[in-house]
Amino acid sequence: MPNFTWDSERNARTGIAEAVFCSGKCLADIQAIIAYHIEQKTPALLTRLDTQVWSALPAEQQDKLDYDPVSRTALLEFTPPAELKSGIAIVAAGTSDLRVAQEAARTLLFNGFAAPMYLDIGVAGLWRLMDQLEAIRQHKIIIAVAGMEGAIFSVLGGLLKAPIIAAPSAIGYGISEGGTTALHSALASCAPGVMAVNIDNGFGAACSAVKIMNQFS
Amino acid sequence: MPNFTWDSERNARTGIAEAVFCSGKCLADIQAIIAYHIEQKTPALLTRLDTQVWSALPAEQQDKLDYDPVSRTALLEFTPPAELKSGIAIVAAGTSDLRVAQEAARTLLFNGFAAPMYLDIGVAGLWRLMDQLEAIRQHKIIIAVAGMEGAIFSVLGGLLKAPIIAAPSAIGYGISEGGTTALHSALASCAPGVMAVNIDNGFGAACSAVKIMNQFS
Amino acid sequence: MPNFTWDSERNARTGIAEAVFCSGKCLADIQAIIAYHIEQKTPALLTRLDTQVWSALPAEQQDKLDYDPVSRTALLEFTPPAELKSGIAIVAAGTSDLRVAQEAARTLLFNGFAAPMYLDIGVAGLWRLMDQLEAIRQHKIIIAVAGMEGAIFSVLGGLLKAPIIAAPSAIGYGISEGGTTALHSALASCAPGVMAVNIDNGFGAACSAVKIMNQFS
Amino acid sequence: MPNFTWDSERNARTGIAEAVFCSGKCLADIQAIIAYHIEQKTPALLTRLDTQVWSALPAEQQDKLDYDPVSRTALLEFTPPAELKSGIAIVAAGTSDLRVAQEAARTLLFNGFAAPMYLDIGVAGLWRLMDQLEAIRQHKIIIAVAGMEGAIFSVLGGLLKAPIIAAPSAIGYGISEGGTTALHSALASCAPGVMAVNIDNGFGAACSAVKIMNQFS
Amino acid sequence: MPNFTWDSERNARTGIAEAVFCSGKCLADIQAIIAYHIEQKTPALLTRLDTQVWSALPAEQQDKLDYDPVSRTALLEFTPPAELKSGIAIVAAGTSDLRVAQEAARTLLFNGFAAPMYLDIGVAGLWRLMDQLEAIRQHKIIIAVAGMEGAIFSVLGGLLKAPIIAAPSAIGYGISEGGTTALHSALASCAPGVMAVNIDNGFGAACSAVKIMNQFS
Amino acid sequence: MPNFTWDSERNARTGIAEAVFCSGKCLADIQAIIAYHIEQKTPALLTRLDTQVWSALPAEQQDKLDYDPVSRTALLEFTPPAELKSGIAIVAAGTSDLRVAQEAARTLLFNGFAAPMYLDIGVAGLWRLMDQLEAIRQHKIIIAVAGMEGAIFSVLGGLLKAPIIAAPSAIGYGISEGGTTALHSALASCAPGVMAVNIDNGFGAACSAVKIMNQFS
Amino acid sequence: MPNFTWDSERNARTGIAEAVFCSGKCLADIQAIIAYHIEQKTPALLTRLDTQVWSALPAEQQDKLDYDPVSRTALLEFTPPAELKSGIAIVAAGTSDLRVAQEAARTLLFNGFAAPMYLDIGVAGLWRLMDQLEAIRQHKIIIAVAGMEGAIFSVLGGLLKAPIIAAPSAIGYGISEGGTTALHSALASCAPGVMAVNIDNGFGAACSAVKIMNQFS
Amino acid sequence: MPNFTWDSERNARTGIAEAVFCSGKCLADIQAIIAYHIEQKTPALLTRLDTQVWSALPAEQQDKLDYDPVSRTALLEFTPPAELKSGIAIVAAGTSDLRVAQEAARTLLFNGFAAPMYLDIGVAGLWRLMDQLEAIRQHKIIIAVAGMEGAIFSVLGGLLKAPIIAAPSAIGYGISEGGTTALHSALASCAPGVMAVNIDNGFGAACSAVKIMNQFS
Repeated sequence: MPNFTWDSERNARTGIAEAVFCSGKCLADIQAIIAYHIEQKTPALLTRLDTQVWSALPAEQQDKLDYDPVSRTALLEFTPPAELKSGIAIVAAGTSDLRVAQEAARTLLFNGFAAPMYLDIGVAGLWRLMDQLEAIRQHKIIIAVAGMEGAIFSVLGGLLKAPIIAAPSAIGYGISEGGTTALHSALASCAPGVMAVNIDNGFGAACSAVKIMNQFS
Repeated sequence: MPNFTWDSERNARTGIAEAVFCSGKCLADIQAIIAYHIEQKTPALLTRLDTQVWSALPAEQQDKLDYDPVSRTALLEFTPPAELKSGIAIVAAGTSDLRVAQEAARTLLFNGFAAPMYLDIGVAGLWRLMDQLEAIRQHKIIIAVAGMEGAIFSVLGGLLKAPIIAAPSAIGYGISEGGTTALHSALASCAPGVMAVNIDNGFGAACSAVKIMNQFS
Repeated sequence: MPNFTWDSERNARTGIAEAVFCSGKCLADIQAIIAYHIEQKTPALLTRLDTQVWSALPAEQQDKLDYDPVSRTALLEFTPPAELKSGIAIVAAGTSDLRVAQEAARTLLFNGFAAPMYLDIGVAGLWRLMDQLEAIRQHKIIIAVAGMEGAIFSVLGGLLKAPIIAAPSAIGYGISEGGTTALHSALASCAPGVMAVNIDNGFGAACSAVKIMNQFS
Repeated sequence: MPNFTWDSERNARTGIAEAVFCSGKCLADIQAIIAYHIEQKTPALLTRLDTQVWSALPAEQQDKLDYDPVSRTALLEFTPPAELKSGIAIVAAGTSDLRVAQEAARTLLFNGFAAPMYLDIGVAGLWRLMDQLEAIRQHKIIIAVAGMEGAIFSVLGGLLKAPIIAAPSAIGYGISEGGTTALHSALASCAPGVMAVNIDNGFGAACSAVKIMNQFS
Repeated sequence: MPNFTWDSERNARTGIAEAVFCSGKCLADIQAIIAYHIEQKTPALLTRLDTQVWSALPAEQQDKLDYDPVSRTALLEFTPPAELKSGIAIVAAGTSDLRVAQEAARTLLFNGFAAPMYLDIGVAGLWRLMDQLEAIRQHKIIIAVAGMEGAIFSVLGGLLKAPIIAAPSAIGYGISEGGTTALHSALASCAPGVMAVNIDNGFGAACSAVKIMNQFS
Repeated sequence: MPNFTWDSERNARTGIAEAVFCSGKCLADIQAIIAYHIEQKTPALLTRLDTQVWSALPAEQQDKLDYDPVSRTALLEFTPPAELKSGIAIVAAGTSDLRVAQEAARTLLFNGFAAPMYLDIGVAGLWRLMDQLEAIRQHKIIIAVAGMEGAIFSVLGGLLKAPIIAAPSAIGYGISEGGTTALHSALASCAPGVMAVNIDNGFGAACSAVKIMNQFS
Repeated sequence: MPNFTWDSERNARTGIAEAVFCSGKCLADIQAIIAYHIEQKTPALLTRLDTQVWSALPAEQQDKLDYDPVSRTALLEFTPPAELKSGIAIVAAGTSDLRVAQEAARTLLFNGFAAPMYLDIGVAGLWRLMDQLEAIRQHKIIIAVAGMEGAIFSVLGGLLKAPIIAAPSAIGYGISEGGTTALHSALASCAPGVMAVNIDNGFGAACSAVKIMNQFS
Repeated sequence: MPNFTWDSERNARTGIAEAVFCSGKCLADIQAIIAYHIEQKTPALLTRLDTQVWSALPAEQQDKLDYDPVSRTALLEFTPPAELKSGIAIVAAGTSDLRVAQEAARTLLFNGFAAPMYLDIGVAGLWRLMDQLEAIRQHKIIIAVAGMEGAIFSVLGGLLKAPIIAAPSAIGYGISEGGTTALHSALASCAPGVMAVNIDNGFGAACSAVKIMNQFS
């Protein structure tokens, strides 16, 4: 008997379908969860599914998974709706932050949203932001991803009417290793309207954005 | 000449009127800011205005200030609109968290929102939450305030469709002194849809909620 | 001559048989300890015995070990008593916490106790806890295992008469990496009757529970 | 209307009567809570009631409070039962730890237990412990209080069959300021059967001990 | 005999006259140092001279001191040269950072430099920076002072040819209390050419700027 | 389409050509960046290019890269000018610090500077420093690299007129693991004129030195 | 009955007479301890006796105490021997470190040692150290006191045959506030023969030196 | 030309021969250092020489090295004197601490000392210490090695006249991972005469002991 119970009612209760956090789970448990979803034909989002764990899955399970190695996410028994919803944009400071930005994008997709991604919008090159500012302004909610010193969170918060969901990325070294500096920058922002989720938590940033959007649709 | 320039256009740009963060400012600068607003008849919100600083202000300035010692906020040249907007609720884990909950409430008022406050909604007494759950569910956005271990953030996130803006409170001692444990609990929450602002940042939680509401009105 | 002396009297003195903490010990020392126990026919519990160390042991020693890779524990020269004692339950927030929950269960077994395990009892899905609450209530002492934000410790402490021994698990990332957030949540719990052991210390949680049970039998 | 609701059913549910954590509460709220209890004639334990707050209470409330400045606790509308229960001992490393030890003793009293206190049982003078060892051994559960390096937790854990509830005390300076070193020593103890509560949490240590005792009576 | 020896040759050796760090020194020692300088007619800069210490000095010493309470600095036996050197600018994020900015300005003055100060140049109001950018660009070296999240360090580093000496200010609360977040932002800056001195070290920032200028004059 | 936009105007704006921080970027993105530069014939500096990533590049790209495994840097489409500029020296405490010192040297080269390197100038052997002091004194700016306790930063600051750019190195273990102790020593230096960049940030130290030199040429 | 037992045999056992750590003890307990010593005519050393506590003692107790406010120590019923032993020197980086250096000197005196004190021996002024080097070299053991970055510990360790007992001092601000940077510098020293005691622990440094000296006399 | 200079005069100056800290050095540099010593026939101690680095050395260099994988030390061109000096003992809490204890023993040997090693002297089994106490008491100086909570440092300090040099070992997990808890326990010890070196610094503990012994011979 597999070591899990599926929270099929979570969607009804919170508006967010339950996802499977694969980190720390043994291969057997992950396989059992996948088999359950295939059998039940219920869609699932798997996060933190490392490439080596994915590679160890049986081929017939791999075939069923839409796997993305950059974000380490997999979609299972999932067909996106014909029309995706809009209103959310993802802004990432550098290409090194793609891991997190992509996890957010995939989670949004799983919840029925298409979100344009604005890359390389760092503070060291402010004009790149200025070039895209009008396009970014068209969205209701901004998910911002940045590592290092995370200065972009405050800059965006000071320029936009949209609330900023800051997803700090564990890109950095020395004093900023692990993403704490970027997280603290988001929390200590002198610009109002900046909220933070955990470091590397693209999934959580997307869920928060979805919950907001769903409250007003 | 006073040491400040007033950002009168911030409202237009970000939808949030600039507030005056009084902590670290000397008395003379605070007085100059107040005088400027009285002269210009522009409304202002002063935060982190400690009681002893307030007491040191000249009586004619005190008279103009609607001061609340619990939240250490003052409203200046401000008349609330005839009809306040709704959609935001404040949930606080204990009466010790009133400082922060009240700062959020006053900031909401300054931005035109009335927000009911649900107090003493702690995890050690879960049925209190259950008693109020239906009432809390009627709101679009929840500002949750808690110190100690901050378990209420996850409990609310798991029970509600509304996004949770967690405002950790610096209530605690030993390992939770200063509010870090509550903050970390919000960030590490296993329930999706929980976002955090800085410890004791009732002002920032309210601004985030206002920015969200304004995007959809 | 092996680099160790066996504390055969510890059982008499503290009621807990000495275990072998294998982490940091070189292979030769671990082999010597195993050989000693086989020779003396004295039962032993080995903890933190990594799979690769276990694999490097000679086959004849492997045969003598009842090894569990999830908890990294091995039982040696041990036959459980015909009738196991009861009174202790293990509650784990997610399947990712099995490593720790299983270490506790195996330590309990080695000390003569059978403990039912309640899995996937997280705060994001409170009704799962509610479903099992009556069953959990039948036990004298609860060992609770959780990573992330560890909110379940407080929820259990507020609902049960039983004391909670919190064993935080190093499941998490970003701000909760390494288990500190879960540990701090246990220590800062606003619910009385929550005690903590070190992160990932399923062994210590079980020893504490055994010591309590033994005092009253 | 006072800012609180009283959890009168907590006793029924968890076996521990709710206490009032006064830290962070404003004077008006504390007064309202006291008045409520006097009116309802329900016993209450107030913790973290600083001497200056106590001094600011109206004389008629002070008269009703059995206040102890060392532990900063007050008993209200409380008459101890004719016969107090036994089974718990308090061991404190130094007289500087009295604050915490006394908070534990008063909480035990409020829950119907009398607990002998063994003072000055530090590691630097091991024979003091040896002198008292036989007396200490007569108790089912030991609450141990120590600051500095907290070595006594491990020494007791290695010598006794009783479980040790370690209550680290914020006595120390430099690297041990705030009690973290003592707390970490308890958590990292190489002796099995040591559990920890938060720094300075004599109240929590006592509640845990009471919950254990109540499970077996 | 006073507890000090004066390093009169430091100026010759490092190009920076020795200053007196008053924090932690007892009143008697500070008085002796002042008396020595008055007697020797050698100029001195006193830093971290708290107002209450200054108030406790004998009136005849106070008269000799050019004391500034905001920066807690005093100049003694010092006459600025007829013509002050230029090339250094001070940029401060908010008026709360004046303490540090002023310490830098006074140290520059003591070393023969006049530095214009640009205040309220925060990231939440980027256009204020843009308004002053041309003026700021005229200087060889920029001393930047900011607390909170310190995003301005990176913004300046990305816009200017001048090296940025970041002096983080201990303005903030919660996660940014004590200035660590601002310091880490400076160190982790994604813009090249940002160097940091210790939190609140306006003195050190100024000395570094002076050493640079002196190398090229 | 590659996931990047090249900041070709950065040089004009800040005087420093943009470099490519390879850490966290996937192989495909790094290849695209290299291809772009080869095509455009624009010089580039790649930093944090790990040997295993370099080995995975196609041979024709490897041939175009001047790669140095010690500093993990690569120069691309770069021909040093006939005459390199001088004025900067690099002082390293031990050979273990070569990684960082070399990253600084290569960055200086890419910006047109030749910098002599003084190795093994530690505090435990002060006479080695004394032997080289006159030679070191001939430079305008000193980049100092040290791990462990970083005492050399203060010693140099007290002996030289040149400003010291401290680049702490992540050499150490136990309490100094990761370089924080060396960084803190630089920041807390009692010698004026010491500025710090992030741990292991030889690139940033060099950029700061270049920006200074360029301001005065 | 006073809350203490006197460890009169400690001297016999460890060679160090027990001292009274007054921090955290209530006035009544301190008075009882003093009274006991006066009655028994046994010498005592009181440490961490704050001036305000000392001022609150009855005049007849004050008269019996040889109190030093800088080190916050008091000697009681103590007459120094006619001839004090030598072999230990105290080196302090600045006059701000006197608090700690003096605590060491008074503890040495109480144990029969006279120790010369070398003040203002900081790294920023290396020649002061050089001037005194020959004198310092005459001692068997060096107690070194420094705050800030504590570079002097390594410099002394590299120049002397004597072992260095580093007593870090809580002098500093920002990143070095509380003395941690100085402590870490001592522990991470690249010079062999440097040992550390806790921050501000002049008492412990002296006891260690005395224990060493006593082993060889 | 190799990247190093050999400090052949260190022995004369500090009484301790220079050792080679191999961590962070590249293979080529280590080979050059070994070749230099073979050529010069000067003895050397190599520390932190990982087994894989040692394996990569040319066979003719391996033959010249007396290598010990447990302590990762190698002796080169070294013949111990006919008669080794005594006076120092090594006490280790568990066999997991052998790495550090052995590094100390090998460093002592290189400096001409033989030191008996007392293993498995932990606090959880106090009688083991008592059994060996008389033997341990015969030594002038004790090097104590322990990880976890490091309680043995205080126990030894309270029982012995000898000074204790505490070498914390990075054995532990969760809150004690990396050895910080053991280090803090040594520093915060309530027993006088305990000094600490860095975590895992068996080399430094031995050098300190040698420096002490040499001062008195």
